[in-house]
Amino acid sequence: MDIKGFQFSAVEAAIKKPGRKDLALIYSEVPAQACAMFTVNAVKAAPVLLSMERITNGSAQALVVNSGNANACTGEAGMEAARGTSRLVSEGLGVADELVQVSSTGVIGVQMPFERIRAAVPALLEGLSSGTLDDVAQAIMTTDTFPKMEARGGEAGGISYTVAGIAKGAGMIMPNMATMLAFIISDAAVENSTLDETFRRAVNASFNAITVDGDMSTNDTCLVMANGAAGNPAISAGTPESAQFEAILGEVLLSLAKQIVRDGEGATKFVEIRVTGARSDADARTAAMAIANSSLVKTAFFGQDANWGRIFAAVGYSGAEVDQRRLSLRFDDVLMAEHGIFAGGDAEALGTQVLRKKEFTVTVDLGLSSGKATVYTSDLSHEYVSINADYRT
Amino acid sequence: MDIKGFQFSAVEAAIKKPGRKDLALIYSEVPAQACAMFTVNAVKAAPVLLSMERITNGSAQALVVNSGNANACTGEAGMEAARGTSRLVSEGLGVADELVQVSSTGVIGVQMPFERIRAAVPALLEGLSSGTLDDVAQAIMTTDTFPKMEARGGEAGGISYTVAGIAKGAGMIMPNMATMLAFIISDAAVENSTLDETFRRAVNASFNAITVDGDMSTNDTCLVMANGAAGNPAISAGTPESAQFEAILGEVLLSLAKQIVRDGEGATKFVEIRVTGARSDADARTAAMAIANSSLVKTAFFGQDANWGRIFAAVGYSGAEVDQRRLSLRFDDVLMAEHGIFAGGDAEALGTQVLRKKEFTVTVDLGLSSGKATVYTSDLSHEYVSINADYRT
Repeated sequence: MDIKGFQFSAVEAAIKKPGRKDLALIYSEVPAQACAMFTVNAVKAAPVLLSMERITNGSAQALVVNSGNANACTGEAGMEAARGTSRLVSEGLGVADELVQVSSTGVIGVQMPFERIRAAVPALLEGLSSGTLDDVAQAIMTTDTFPKMEARGGEAGGISYTVAGIAKGAGMIMPNMATMLAFIISDAAVENSTLDETFRRAVNASFNAITVDGDMSTNDTCLVMANGAAGNPAISAGTPESAQFEAILGEVLLSLAKQIVRDGEGATKFVEIRVTGARSDADARTAAMAIANSSLVKTAFFGQDANWGRIFAAVGYSGAEVDQRRLSLRFDDVLMAEHGIFAGGDAEALGTQVLRKKEFTVTVDLGLSSGKATVYTSDLSHEYVSINADYRT
Repeated sequence: MDIKGFQFSAVEAAIKKPGRKDLALIYSEVPAQACAMFTVNAVKAAPVLLSMERITNGSAQALVVNSGNANACTGEAGMEAARGTSRLVSEGLGVADELVQVSSTGVIGVQMPFERIRAAVPALLEGLSSGTLDDVAQAIMTTDTFPKMEARGGEAGGISYTVAGIAKGAGMIMPNMATMLAFIISDAAVENSTLDETFRRAVNASFNAITVDGDMSTNDTCLVMANGAAGNPAISAGTPESAQFEAILGEVLLSLAKQIVRDGEGATKFVEIRVTGARSDADARTAAMAIANSSLVKTAFFGQDANWGRIFAAVGYSGAEVDQRRLSLRFDDVLMAEHGIFAGGDAEALGTQVLRKKEFTVTVDLGLSSGKATVYTSDLSHEYVSINADYRT
């Protein structure tokens, strides 16, 4: 993977337990076009408040991110820590403070150990000469069991470019935003308005279509930076190049989103929930999310129990328009129920076989109109409870 | 407990596993004033559809209820089974079919074994001579670990009367309605409109203020029957007797609601969530429900982890108006956070002590206005996952 004009670094700042990198930097040698989407939680972490303000100028040159501490519910001291972190990085790199994005993930409500960050920044800057995007992906992990990366290549005006992304997820995964942190970089030249539009559409079809536990974080951030170092003519909206860029960006984001679900806390299943035949796409999404977030449905997935009635119950309380006599349901290709009742025959045995797979699709047809939506989710396991019962200890 | 003019019976109809009573009957010797509230799930069980239609006449004389099969998602055959069950009971008792309420709880999507009910009804009718309300409370249990009963006495016009109730709950507990099944009987004479008003208010303050897992059942039913057998002058609205009756009814319902939470599937904690200082009572309720339904908050309760930041995060995404700088939080009397940040001092140690208790209160003050609400919930444990992973097996 070759992404021109970006440098990376990750170090141990002792925010997390010893032996794990927890402070990372992405640096673009020139200011990049940038857009970001942030949590809509009314309780926002300090770095989110800071970065939201800065991204309005449409460009960024550096991202400094830590794991192990969310810097959320930390008041003015937390804002000072976020600003101070940014200042150390901007001075060290010689870039304007407003071009530095700050991001954090970890425990909520604990003050950021700023002196440890200060002590670690020199090594962080030094590491830029040899670091990789993979190092950054590792450093932003919290309860993640594997780093999440994806990259795709494209071409504009005969010039090749790359779109690469990293993400961390695991728990507190729910639209909007679904991810906790995702950072996308590209060496393509893209007009700012084009980047903004394509990015928002891609986020809605990926991160906003996944859910692990229905909780929404105080720190969710998805940032894209395109620095133009590939040297292509700037991609602008309404062109084949723009369509290709959007497709590539969408693939990278969807891959990262799916990786987050696969690594959902304690997840043993990856489930695609499709709702069709709804009165509207919005209704379909409402119904799909109710299924995806139902504790009873998710524990049944974990137990490999073809308890399709719970899925109809979730659809029924979702708020979507439902006529129970028109509902049908499939596990992969196995028809489990139609006209609102059990399909009979071998459905139970065949459906149970599907649920024994690690990945499968649940399709509910509401039988009303043509609205449809797809979301991705995991099961709810003993391990989820274990991870979250003693997350801080 | 002496409730005049009611008879009870419970038998084994082999709907559940052998050795457990699963078919029960409550019979009033005269037609009783009756009101009921049902699930608002768009997917409604057959007995709910039947009983909803019948309750509009404002009276009932018998309730036949089974556990082990919800008779939901069972289509026209399910409706036939519900009607057939009612017919057997109405003929056996010699009461009008429209005065029979039918209720079911158990697995969704499996056809009701009507022939077993037919075979069991003679014994059910015979049992009325010796059965008790406690027998009925036992027979409606599914994953409940104990039967839920409460009774209180009152007086009107110098005549004593009793209000008694039974309930079953455990999982799929969420407003509106919170309970799966609750049946309240009284020998008081109460005007129908007075019964209706007091009952609805009492349900909102009790069953609609509890949540175990955020799922809503297809079968939720709460029914009250007052048969006047005590012989008091009929209680009418706006009188001291009405106020007393409402208070007693409220106590019975709240006690049953709390018993349901205490017996929440896998519950190890009983938590009262109070939200104060909200822009409105509705906002307070929205925030309290978000806390009570957050998987991350509930697993932290299970782990006895004073992770108050997750509670602020839940409040933040609830949709209630929130200014994060004004939030404060207490575990019982221990101030954990104020002005949106950690309270410092001994809060961590003292807060953890509170969470080690079996029952405690979480109070969040939004610091905006005077809106307030209280809801009751349980924690989310390994046992919840175990129970629901293989519920049908």
